[in-house]
Amino acid sequence: MNEVCTVNHIDHVAIAVRDINAALEFFQTIFDAPPSEISVMPEHGVKASLIQIGQTRIEILEALDPDNPVGRFVQNKGEGLHHLALNVSGLQDKLNFLSAQGLQLIDKEPREGLSGSVAFVHPRSVFGVLTELVENNG
Amino acid sequence: MNEVCTVNHIDHVAIAVRDINAALEFFQTIFDAPPSEISVMPEHGVKASLIQIGQTRIEILEALDPDNPVGRFVQNKGEGLHHLALNVSGLQDKLNFLSAQGLQLIDKEPREGLSGSVAFVHPRSVFGVLTELVENNG
Repeated sequence: MNEVCTVNHIDHVAIAVRDINAALEFFQTIFDAPPSEISVMPEHGVKASLIQIGQTRIEILEALDPDNPVGRFVQNKGEGLHHLALNVSGLQDKLNFLSAQGLQLIDKEPREGLSGSVAFVHPRSVFGVLTELVENNG
Repeated sequence: MNEVCTVNHIDHVAIAVRDINAALEFFQTIFDAPPSEISVMPEHGVKASLIQIGQTRIEILEALDPDNPVGRFVQNKGEGLHHLALNVSGLQDKLNFLSAQGLQLIDKEPREGLSGSVAFVHPRSVFGVLTELVENNG
Protein backbone atom coordinates (compact mmCIF):
# COMPACT_ATOMS: atom_id res chain seq x y z
CA MET A 1 0.00 0.00 0.00
CA ASN A 2 1.27 3.44 -0.92
CA GLU A 3 1.99 5.76 1.97
CA VAL A 4 0.56 8.80 0.19
CA CYS A 5 -1.75 9.51 -2.73
CA THR A 6 0.81 10.70 -5.27
CA VAL A 7 -0.76 12.63 -8.15
CA ASN A 8 0.68 11.92 -11.61
CA HIS A 9 -0.94 14.95 -13.22
CA ILE A 10 -4.24 16.80 -13.35
CA ASP A 11 -6.46 14.50 -15.40
CA HIS A 12 -9.16 17.07 -16.11
CA VAL A 13 -11.09 20.05 -14.85
CA ALA A 14 -14.85 19.70 -15.29
CA ILE A 15 -17.33 22.44 -16.15
CA ALA A 16 -21.08 21.87 -15.76
CA VAL A 17 -23.13 23.62 -18.46
CA ARG A 18 -26.73 23.73 -19.65
CA ASP A 19 -25.93 22.99 -23.33
CA ILE A 20 -22.90 20.85 -24.11
CA ASN A 21 -23.10 21.55 -27.84
CA ALA A 22 -23.01 25.31 -27.26
CA ALA A 23 -20.06 24.94 -24.88
CA LEU A 24 -18.04 22.78 -27.27
CA GLU A 25 -18.71 25.18 -30.13
CA PHE A 26 -17.61 28.07 -27.90
CA PHE A 27 -14.34 26.41 -26.86
CA GLN A 28 -13.61 25.45 -30.47
CA THR A 29 -14.45 28.86 -31.92
CA ILE A 30 -12.98 31.08 -29.24
CA PHE A 31 -10.18 29.01 -27.70
CA ASP A 32 -9.15 26.93 -30.72
CA ALA A 33 -10.03 23.69 -28.89
CA PRO A 34 -9.85 20.48 -30.92
CA PRO A 35 -13.11 18.72 -31.79
CA SER A 36 -14.19 16.18 -29.16
CA GLU A 37 -16.82 13.47 -29.07
CA ILE A 38 -19.87 13.64 -26.83
CA SER A 39 -20.51 10.50 -24.77
CA VAL A 40 -23.96 9.88 -23.35
CA MET A 41 -23.50 8.20 -19.96
CA PRO A 42 -26.85 7.32 -18.36
CA GLU A 43 -25.07 5.56 -15.47
CA HIS A 44 -23.49 8.94 -14.54
CA GLY A 45 -26.52 10.99 -15.57
CA VAL A 46 -24.59 13.18 -18.00
CA LYS A 47 -23.51 13.87 -21.52
CA ALA A 48 -19.76 14.47 -21.34
CA SER A 49 -16.92 15.47 -23.60
CA LEU A 50 -13.19 15.75 -22.94
CA ILE A 51 -11.30 18.57 -24.67
CA GLN A 52 -7.58 17.81 -24.76
CA ILE A 53 -5.46 20.88 -23.88
CA GLY A 54 -1.80 20.11 -23.38
CA GLN A 55 -1.31 17.36 -20.79
CA THR A 56 -4.77 17.77 -19.30
CA ARG A 57 -8.36 18.06 -20.42
CA ILE A 58 -11.39 20.25 -19.88
CA GLU A 59 -14.45 18.08 -19.35
CA ILE A 60 -17.79 19.55 -20.36
CA LEU A 61 -20.81 18.07 -18.56
CA GLU A 62 -24.52 18.45 -19.30
CA ALA A 63 -26.99 16.75 -16.97
CA LEU A 64 -29.43 14.27 -18.51
CA ASP A 65 -31.93 15.09 -15.77
CA PRO A 66 -32.29 18.39 -13.83
CA ASP A 67 -32.86 16.37 -10.64
CA ASN A 68 -29.58 14.43 -10.68
CA PRO A 69 -26.40 15.76 -8.98
CA VAL A 70 -25.03 17.67 -11.98
CA GLY A 71 -28.51 18.95 -12.80
CA ARG A 72 -29.05 20.21 -9.26
CA PHE A 73 -25.59 21.81 -9.28
CA VAL A 74 -26.53 23.87 -12.34
CA GLN A 75 -30.00 24.66 -10.97
CA ASN A 76 -28.64 25.79 -7.59
CA LYS A 77 -25.29 27.36 -8.39
CA GLY A 78 -25.48 28.02 -12.11
CA GLU A 79 -23.04 26.84 -14.75
CA GLY A 80 -19.39 26.74 -13.72
CA LEU A 81 -16.45 24.75 -12.43
CA HIS A 82 -17.76 21.44 -11.11
CA HIS A 83 -14.90 19.16 -10.09
CA LEU A 84 -11.16 18.55 -10.28
CA ALA A 85 -9.80 15.19 -11.40
CA LEU A 86 -6.37 13.96 -10.34
CA ASN A 87 -4.64 11.14 -12.20
CA VAL A 88 -3.22 8.43 -9.94
CA SER A 89 -1.83 4.91 -10.18
CA GLY A 90 -3.17 2.07 -8.04
CA LEU A 91 -6.57 3.67 -7.43
CA GLN A 92 -7.92 1.15 -4.89
CA ASP A 93 -4.79 1.52 -2.72
CA LYS A 94 -5.13 5.30 -2.94
CA LEU A 95 -8.76 5.15 -1.84
CA ASN A 96 -7.80 2.94 1.12
CA PHE A 97 -5.12 5.48 2.08
CA LEU A 98 -7.50 8.44 1.84
CA SER A 99 -10.14 6.62 3.88
CA ALA A 100 -7.54 5.75 6.54
CA GLN A 101 -6.61 9.45 6.64
CA GLY A 102 -10.22 10.29 7.44
CA LEU A 103 -11.28 11.66 4.08
CA GLN A 104 -14.91 11.05 3.16
CA LEU A 105 -15.15 8.94 0.01
CA ILE A 106 -18.20 9.09 -2.24
CA ASP A 107 -16.97 5.92 -3.98
CA LYS A 108 -15.17 3.41 -1.78
CA GLU A 109 -14.36 1.35 -4.87
CA PRO A 110 -13.49 2.48 -8.39
CA ARG A 111 -16.20 2.53 -11.04
CA GLU A 112 -15.96 3.01 -14.76
CA GLY A 113 -15.93 6.61 -15.97
CA LEU A 114 -15.21 8.46 -19.18
CA SER A 115 -11.49 8.63 -18.34
CA GLY A 116 -10.96 5.11 -17.01
CA SER A 117 -11.52 3.87 -13.47
CA VAL A 118 -12.73 6.72 -11.29
CA ALA A 119 -13.79 7.46 -7.72
CA PHE A 120 -15.01 10.67 -6.11
CA VAL A 121 -13.96 12.21 -2.80
CA HIS A 122 -16.46 14.43 -0.98
CA PRO A 123 -15.79 18.18 -1.30
CA ARG A 124 -15.94 18.64 2.49
CA SER A 125 -12.71 16.60 2.71
CA VAL A 126 -10.84 18.69 0.09
CA PHE A 127 -11.46 22.36 0.90
CA GLY A 128 -14.79 22.44 -0.90
CA VAL A 129 -13.48 20.82 -4.08
CA LEU A 130 -15.36 17.79 -5.41
CA THR A 131 -12.30 15.68 -6.25
CA GLU A 132 -12.21 12.78 -8.68
CA LEU A 133 -9.37 10.29 -8.75
CA VAL A 134 -8.76 8.74 -12.15
CA GLU A 135 -6.68 5.73 -13.13
CA ASN A 136 -6.39 5.33 -16.87
CA ASN A 137 -7.08 1.80 -18.00
CA GLY A 138 -4.74 -0.21 -20.20
CA MET B 1 -3.68 39.86 -34.62
CA ASN B 2 -4.47 36.21 -34.03
CA GLU B 3 -7.77 34.98 -35.39
CA VAL B 4 -8.52 32.88 -32.33
CA CYS B 5 -7.37 32.67 -28.72
CA THR B 6 -5.27 29.51 -28.93
CA VAL B 7 -4.58 27.96 -25.53
CA ASN B 8 -1.07 26.57 -24.99
CA HIS B 9 -2.00 24.62 -21.89
CA ILE B 10 -3.92 24.97 -18.64
CA ASP B 11 -1.77 27.29 -16.56
CA HIS B 12 -3.46 26.59 -13.26
CA VAL B 13 -6.69 25.76 -11.46
CA ALA B 14 -7.32 27.97 -8.43
CA ILE B 15 -8.92 26.95 -5.15
CA ALA B 16 -10.07 29.58 -2.63
CA VAL B 17 -9.58 28.49 0.98
CA ARG B 18 -9.81 30.00 4.47
CA ASP B 19 -6.32 28.92 5.59
CA ILE B 20 -3.61 28.63 2.96
CA ASN B 21 -1.16 26.98 5.37
CA ALA B 22 -3.66 24.24 6.20
CA ALA B 23 -4.39 23.69 2.50
CA LEU B 24 -0.71 23.45 1.54
CA GLU B 25 -0.03 21.03 4.38
CA PHE B 26 -3.01 18.94 3.27
CA PHE B 27 -1.87 18.75 -0.36
CA GLN B 28 1.67 17.89 0.71
CA THR B 29 0.64 15.27 3.25
CA ILE B 30 -2.21 13.64 1.39
CA PHE B 31 -1.38 14.18 -2.30
CA ASP B 32 2.42 14.23 -2.14
CA ALA B 33 2.52 17.80 -3.49
CA PRO B 34 5.92 19.50 -3.58
CA PRO B 35 6.55 22.36 -1.15
CA SER B 36 5.60 25.77 -2.56
CA GLU B 37 6.20 29.33 -1.47
CA ILE B 38 3.43 31.61 -0.26
CA SER B 39 3.36 35.05 -1.91
CA VAL B 40 1.54 37.90 -0.20
CA MET B 41 -0.01 40.04 -2.94
CA PRO B 42 -1.79 43.10 -1.51
CA GLU B 43 -2.52 44.39 -5.03
CA HIS B 44 -4.61 41.25 -5.65
CA GLY B 45 -5.88 41.01 -2.08
CA VAL B 46 -4.61 37.47 -1.54
CA LYS B 47 -1.95 35.18 -0.25
CA ALA B 48 -1.25 32.72 -3.06
CA SER B 49 0.83 29.64 -3.70
CA LEU B 50 1.32 27.59 -6.86
CA ILE B 51 1.69 23.82 -6.46
CA GLN B 52 3.32 22.30 -9.54
CA ILE B 53 1.61 19.08 -10.66
CA GLY B 54 2.80 17.81 -14.02
CA GLN B 55 2.44 20.50 -16.69
CA THR B 56 -0.02 22.59 -14.71
CA ARG B 57 -0.42 23.98 -11.19
CA ILE B 58 -2.99 24.13 -8.45
CA GLU B 59 -3.14 27.67 -7.07
CA ILE B 60 -4.21 28.04 -3.44
CA LEU B 61 -5.72 31.44 -2.57
CA GLU B 62 -6.50 32.96 0.82
CA ALA B 63 -8.13 36.37 0.93
CA LEU B 64 -6.31 39.12 2.84
CA ASP B 65 -9.68 40.77 3.57
CA PRO B 66 -13.09 39.08 3.87
CA ASP B 67 -14.63 41.99 1.92
CA ASN B 68 -12.52 41.64 -1.23
CA PRO B 69 -13.59 39.44 -4.18
CA VAL B 70 -11.89 36.23 -2.99
CA GLY B 71 -13.03 36.89 0.58
CA ARG B 72 -16.64 37.40 -0.52
CA PHE B 73 -16.45 34.24 -2.66
CA VAL B 74 -15.50 32.18 0.39
CA GLN B 75 -18.08 33.94 2.61
CA ASN B 76 -20.88 33.42 0.10
CA LYS B 77 -20.10 30.11 -1.57
CA GLY B 78 -17.62 28.49 0.80
CA GLU B 79 -14.21 27.17 -0.04
CA GLY B 80 -13.80 25.59 -3.46
CA LEU B 81 -12.81 25.91 -7.10
CA HIS B 82 -12.40 29.60 -7.87
CA HIS B 83 -11.05 30.11 -11.39
CA LEU B 84 -9.42 28.44 -14.39
CA ALA B 85 -6.27 29.92 -15.93
CA LEU B 86 -5.35 29.31 -19.55
CA ASN B 87 -1.82 29.91 -20.81
CA VAL B 88 -1.66 31.95 -24.03
CA SER B 89 0.91 33.80 -26.12
CA GLY B 90 0.41 37.43 -27.18
CA LEU B 91 -1.99 38.27 -24.36
CA GLN B 92 -3.01 41.77 -25.49
CA ASP B 93 -3.94 40.48 -28.97
CA LYS B 94 -5.92 37.70 -27.37
CA LEU B 95 -7.81 40.18 -25.19
CA ASN B 96 -8.60 42.30 -28.24
CA PHE B 97 -9.92 39.20 -30.02
CA LEU B 98 -12.10 38.16 -27.08
CA SER B 99 -13.49 41.66 -26.73
CA ALA B 100 -14.27 41.78 -30.46
CA GLN B 101 -16.12 38.45 -30.05
CA GLY B 102 -18.30 40.06 -27.40
CA LEU B 103 -16.78 38.49 -24.30
CA GLN B 104 -16.84 40.68 -21.19
CA LEU B 105 -13.31 41.37 -19.99
CA ILE B 106 -12.59 42.22 -16.36
CA ASP B 107 -9.11 43.40 -17.41
CA LYS B 108 -8.87 45.06 -20.81
CA GLU B 109 -5.11 45.18 -20.45
CA PRO B 110 -2.73 42.68 -18.83
CA ARG B 111 -1.55 43.29 -15.29
CA GLU B 112 1.16 41.56 -13.30
CA GLY B 113 0.13 38.41 -11.47
CA LEU B 114 1.80 35.53 -9.70
CA SER B 115 2.21 33.62 -12.97
CA GLY B 116 3.28 36.47 -15.27
CA SER B 117 1.04 38.88 -17.17
CA VAL B 118 -2.59 38.07 -16.48
CA ALA B 119 -6.09 39.24 -17.34
CA PHE B 120 -9.48 37.97 -16.22
CA VAL B 121 -12.58 37.31 -18.33
CA HIS B 122 -16.00 37.57 -16.65
CA PRO B 123 -17.60 34.22 -15.79
CA ARG B 124 -20.82 35.17 -17.54
CA SER B 125 -18.89 35.04 -20.83
CA VAL B 126 -17.43 31.54 -20.19
CA PHE B 127 -20.29 29.32 -18.95
CA GLY B 128 -19.95 30.53 -15.37
CA VAL B 129 -16.18 30.01 -15.20
CA LEU B 130 -14.06 32.94 -14.02
CA THR B 131 -11.30 32.59 -16.60
CA GLU B 132 -7.80 33.99 -16.32
CA LEU B 133 -5.49 34.31 -19.30
CA VAL B 134 -1.81 34.05 -18.44
CA GLU B 135 1.24 34.89 -20.50
CA ASN B 136 4.47 33.81 -18.82
CA ASN B 137 7.08 36.53 -18.83
CA GLY B 138 10.61 36.06 -20.06
